[in-house]
Order: sequence, then structure tokens, then C-alpha cells
Amino acid sequence: MNSDIKKNRMTDVVLTILKPDGAPLANQEVTVEQTNHKFLFGTAAFDLVPLTSGDYSGEKKELAEQRAKKIAALFNAATLPFYWGRFEPKRGEPITEKVKNAARWSLEHNMVTKGHPLCWHTVTADWLLELSNAEILQAQLDRIHRDVADFKGLIDMWDVINEAVIMPVFDKYDNGITRICKEHGRINTIRMMFDAARETNPTATLLINDFDVSSAYDILVEGCLEAGIKFDVIGIQSHMHQGWWGVEKTMKVLENFERFNIPIHFTETTLVSGHLMPPEIVDLNDYQVTDWPSTLEGEERQAEEAIQHYKTLFAHPLVEGITWWDSSDGGWLNAPAGLLRKDGSPKPAYDELMKLIKGDWWLPPTKIITNINGQIQLSCFSGEYNLKYGGYKETFTVTKEGASNNSQFMIHMKNIEK
Amino acid sequence: MNSDIKKNRMTDVVLTILKPDGAPLANQEVTVEQTNHKFLFGTAAFDLVPLTSGDYSGEKKELAEQRAKKIAALFNAATLPFYWGRFEPKRGEPITEKVKNAARWSLEHNMVTKGHPLCWHTVTADWLLELSNAEILQAQLDRIHRDVADFKGLIDMWDVINEAVIMPVFDKYDNGITRICKEHGRINTIRMMFDAARETNPTATLLINDFDVSSAYDILVEGCLEAGIKFDVIGIQSHMHQGWWGVEKTMKVLENFERFNIPIHFTETTLVSGHLMPPEIVDLNDYQVTDWPSTLEGEERQAEEAIQHYKTLFAHPLVEGITWWDSSDGGWLNAPAGLLRKDGSPKPAYDELMKLIKGDWWLPPTKIITNINGQIQLSCFSGEYNLKYGGYKETFTVTKEGASNNSQFMIHMKNIEK
Repeated sequence: MNSDIKKNRMTDVVLTILKPDGAPLANQEVTVEQTNHKFLFGTAAFDLVPLTSGDYSGEKKELAEQRAKKIAALFNAATLPFYWGRFEPKRGEPITEKVKNAARWSLEHNMVTKGHPLCWHTVTADWLLELSNAEILQAQLDRIHRDVADFKGLIDMWDVINEAVIMPVFDKYDNGITRICKEHGRINTIRMMFDAARETNPTATLLINDFDVSSAYDILVEGCLEAGIKFDVIGIQSHMHQGWWGVEKTMKVLENFERFNIPIHFTETTLVSGHLMPPEIVDLNDYQVTDWPSTLEGEERQAEEAIQHYKTLFAHPLVEGITWWDSSDGGWLNAPAGLLRKDGSPKPAYDELMKLIKGDWWLPPTKIITNINGQIQLSCFSGEYNLKYGGYKETFTVTKEGASNNSQFMIHMKNIEK
Repeated sequence: MNSDIKKNRMTDVVLTILKPDGAPLANQEVTVEQTNHKFLFGTAAFDLVPLTSGDYSGEKKELAEQRAKKIAALFNAATLPFYWGRFEPKRGEPITEKVKNAARWSLEHNMVTKGHPLCWHTVTADWLLELSNAEILQAQLDRIHRDVADFKGLIDMWDVINEAVIMPVFDKYDNGITRICKEHGRINTIRMMFDAARETNPTATLLINDFDVSSAYDILVEGCLEAGIKFDVIGIQSHMHQGWWGVEKTMKVLENFERFNIPIHFTETTLVSGHLMPPEIVDLNDYQVTDWPSTLEGEERQAEEAIQHYKTLFAHPLVEGITWWDSSDGGWLNAPAGLLRKDGSPKPAYDELMKLIKGDWWLPPTKIITNINGQIQLSCFSGEYNLKYGGYKETFTVTKEGASNNSQFMIHMKNIEK
């Protein structure tokens, strides 16, 4: 696996550093350091909405600030909440400004933002139930146009549709989205939602997302692709409240989607640090407990599984992102799924992921002597880098493409005094 | 359910019977009798191949003849075997003539014929393994062109592709069909097979067929339809070795396919009259037993379940056929799945189905007096009928469309002497 990580994530680059007069900066010590990953190490960051909107005060605010700081130290991507029923509980009164605050905070902290989700049958707006199917569809499309436009520049990545596999057959309760999906079919519903999002923000990264990892999902993806729908990313949830999938199942799931040759995000990754949810539970939402404690033993298991899961996914050439769900304990299902405990302290899994993301898979500030041609050689992860010399700084980007072309980075150190 | 059977299967027709001079045949007793169902009550009839090809002799032949007679008395449709590995075990030497014998026998006994299957990864030809993927694909398409052409007129209904849901991920053993399906994807594979069959016999009835009744199958169907592939019939297997589905599951499965508004066949219906296969078996082929006896209790259960299953399906407007699998005990998996025991004697399920198909759902010879306008009124099942008067006979057909147009059947009783 480590050799796959090297092969799929690292690039050998040669940088040529020139002085202002164009002559090579020969035999000098420069410092190179990574400042960001291209790979998206993300987390559900719903807590940022109340925090950045002034909804917390006192100790609550302090704790939320600490959590946010820890999140930003580890992750470079944030999934922000667009559950329609909560985003626009009363028709015409969306909480756009609040979520914009969270998006701005994320961007300021070098976190790529994603909106989740634009169309889903769960936690959707209750007021849809009073509309006709044609009106529901129009409201859904209007909502996509409005929100994708409102957040353009603040959020340019969207889970456009969530859980379309069960969408038309979802029978736990009546809801507007199941109604329209039943009428129009999955593929046409997906097509309409993607068209709406694409029209409004043509360069956005648009995902289909699902928890279903049976053949049903990859068959749906195949059907959509054959019908001409363009996904930028295939999103795969992996809520493992009932136990870690293990490497074998994870690889099997990946294998089912490899043939499409489309980037993959693991959009919702859960590993609990307490007891496992009983295997007989089919819909995770059915497991309602008042207390689900994080345990010492559970935290060790969670840390080990997190390491294995991230290593497995980071090694796969098509995976371009992993999102942890939730960052702190006590979120969805009251599960001990956080990397942080309720008191904000980091669990072993947090520390272990830090060791990978900002350790093994990261180039810390490193001093290198240029050769006689002003060149240095590096083997580094795709991402953003600083190159420093004296009091000067240049930035550069490393991608896989750079390596495949054996490209050279020409860097002008401006205003260098000999 | 009985009201749905009446609504979906029966038609009120008015027949006007005219004498040779065009005057109505008033106040006369005529006899009407059903001679066939439009609905396909079928069975796997593989045994007809050796029987009609002279492969049996002595007591074996006698038993096979008795079985065939009983099958033809109950059913009006026969599924004939085209498993490639058995149909053409040595490349270039298909057993075309033998299967033609069985097809001819079926047609002579008023049974509609269907070939099963043209493309499947199981029991496929071993010699494919030595070919390249391009050669396998060509051989598969050639096989479809050849067989569909060879049997045109003898077989005009085909299970074109079988079990495409698992086809590309089938991993029990290497085979040529999984290889090409993996390369081309499910939808493209299905498209190529249907195109080949359709080109060769444009008016044939072409089915997609699967055992998978999860969302994966209806999503695959939706994907194919969106991609422009035309299915005449959606085939659903229902091998219930592990227990009858019950009405609720059967209705749920039907509901998943209703939205396509395409005719449905239950292509492979199994109900055992012995112990049930353990529920933990996933691939039915894994259950290998030397003895699986039919029991008294099991036969009663089988009969009751068969009645319920047939009533449920016959009541559904989109279902146009049910095929029993196998007709006699000791076929696939050595299961007591037959309507006939190994000694050829009919089980209660045979008798009960006879009571439905040729009893409750059948018009026996019935005497009716025409009115003054030479008319009789009938409420009858879609199918073929005889009308007799004196020594003369006319035939007529009843379909649902007849009823919806309130059409009248004008029958000239030829050569009637006043």
C-alpha cells in the first residue's frame, strides 16, 4: 500500500531557481515546505455555522472555537450543511447568510468548501408536502439555482443529489422529493438536478453521493453516464457505525467504480470509538440511544481503523478526498464518531491522522542546497509549497501531471541581492 | 385479488352471429368454448429435447412421454434450453436439430416456445476461455445471429440476456461472458445482445431476465431504457427454494417495475414440495444434496403457495406470463420443485393449477341461446375460442382491447342451412 501511495500521490520534481538576472542560484541553501494537500482531507463542519454566526456565547463559544481550531489544523476541506428542511424551514427564508459566514471562515482557514446536499428526500422541507408534484419539482430546481448562485465563489463543490438509489422507494414517511423521484425516475431526477447546478455554476465540482455500495449504485452511475449525465466526482458514504469495513471490502467497493475512471470521494466516513451498532439495524437512523460513550478501548480501535482506512483510500489513484463524519462526539445519532471528545480533547484517531496528513504525507520545512545549475530535486505529495531563500518566498504547486511531463518549475526569486 | 383478475384478465364481449345470407342467427343454441389462454402459463421443458430426439427408450421413454402429455395438458408455453456450454459444447457443432425437434413438438401441442438464454455467464461455452475478448464478443454475437435465425418461426421469443446485474462481477470462476461484460459494462453488453437478436428477428419478443429483485435490477432496466434499449418483456426469476415470497414481497417486486409500463414475465418460478433450503445460502448453486425428498406436508404447502402465487401474478395487469421451474422433480439442484413426482404422478400443486388454469380461469364448452339479433354476451378471459353451431365451427380471439372498444365479433357461419 505504501508503494501505491508513493506511486499515486507523490511526484518527483526538479525545481530550477534563478536569480533576478536569470542566472541560476547555484550552491545555496533554500527551504521548501508544504502548505497544503491537493488531496481533500475533509470533515463535516456544521458546527461552523452557529460559531461564525454568533449563536454561541461564553464557555460554549470557547469550546466551539477550540474545536474549529483543531479542525482547521488537521483538515483542508469542510462540508457545510444545506439540508433543505433546516436551511429553509419557512419557505422564502433560507439561512443563507449564516452558512456564508461558515463558508468564509473555512476559506480563510485554507479549507475547500462543499455544500451538502442540494437534493435529498431526508430532512427535506416539510412545506413541499402541500405542493403538487410539478410545484415541488420547480421549487427544488429553484432552490438549486438560488443556492448555487448565492454561494458561487464561496462554495464551488456540491453534493447535488444524495441517496438516489433509495430515493423513489423510500417509505419511512411521505416527502416531496420521493414523490417527484417516483414520478420522474431516478435518472431523469438526477439529470434535472445536475442540469440546474451546472447551468448556475458551470465550473463547480458536482457530485452524486450515496450510502448504497451494492451493485445498485454503480449500475445507477452507469445508467446516468450512458444517459449523458456528467459527474465530476462519485461520492461514496462509509458510515461504519456497525464496524470498519476492512481493507478487503473497501477495495471491493472501489473496484466497482474504477471502470468509470471518474474521481471518487469518500464523502462521509464514520468510525466510532464506542460500542458498535448492532448488525441487525438496517437504517442507521433507527438506532436511537441517549448515551453512546466513547471508551478507551474503542478509541484505540478507532485510531487503528482510521489509519488503515485512510491509508487504503489515499493509496488508490481515483480517490481524491475523504471526509470524516462528524468531527466531534455527540453529533448524528449521538454517536462517539468524533475525532474530538465532547470536551474538545483530541482522541488518538485525531493524533494518528495528524501524524499521517501533516507527518508521513507531508513535507515539513526542509533545507536543500541547490546544485551548480540552481536546481533541487524533490519527491513530494501533490499540493501547495513554499520555497524560501533569505527573506524571500515563492509558492509553487505540485500535481501528478507535473511529474508525468517531468516538468521543471522555474522560479524567479524577486529582488534577490547577490 | 379476484376482482383484479376480473378487471385485468376478463373482457365483456358481444358476438353477433350471422347466417350466410347476412341475417342474424336468432334464438338458436350455440356452444362457446375456450381453446387457449393469451396469458402464458409456461414451464421449463428441457426434457422435450431428448424425448423428441429419440434419446430415450423403453420405460424411460414411456415415462418421458407421460410427463410431456401432462405438461401439454396444463401449460401453453415451453421454455427450451440454449445454455451455450450444452448447446454447442464443441465449437461449430450446435445441437440445433435436437432443440428444433422439441420446439416443433411444443408448437404442435399449442405451446408458445421461448429460448433460454442467448447470453449468460453460467453454463457458457468453455472454449471461449481460449479467445481474446474481441473474439469472445464476436462469437457471442455470431451465436445470437445464428440461433435466432435458425429457429425463426419455431422460436420467436428469447431470454436475450440472463443475470446481467451480477454478470461483470461474477467471481466464482473465470468465464468468457463475464470478461466481455466487465470490459464493455452492463448496458453496452445488453445493447449489443439485443441489437443482434433484434436484427435477426425484428418481430421476436425479446426479454431481459434476472434473479436479482433488489433495486439493482430495476435501476439497470431504467438505465437501459434511458440508453434507448427496447425490451419487449421484463423477465423476473423467482426461485423460491428458500421459501415462498408471499404476496407482500411479490407485490413489492412488481411495484418496482410497474413504472416502466412494460409487460412482465415471471420466467422461472420455483416452489419446492420438500424441506426449504437454509436461508444462509446465498448462491442457490452452493446447495448440493444427494437426496431432497418431496414430502406429503411439503406437497400440500407447495400447492397452497402455488395457488396464491399464481393468483397474485394473474391479477396484475402487467404480468403476461408465469413459467414453472422445473416441471418434474430431480431437475436443477435435485430439488423437489416439480409439479410431477419422479414417477410422473402429479402432485397436488399440479391439480390445483389445473383447477385454476383450465377451471376457474377458463370457459368450458358452454351452451348459449342467441337473442333476436343473433347476439350472445360473454365475459371471458383473453385467449382463443371456438364457437360451434350444428356441425360448424368458427374461432375467435378475445383480447383486452376488444373490450375497451366494446367491439363486436361478426361471425359468418358458413354453409348454414336454414
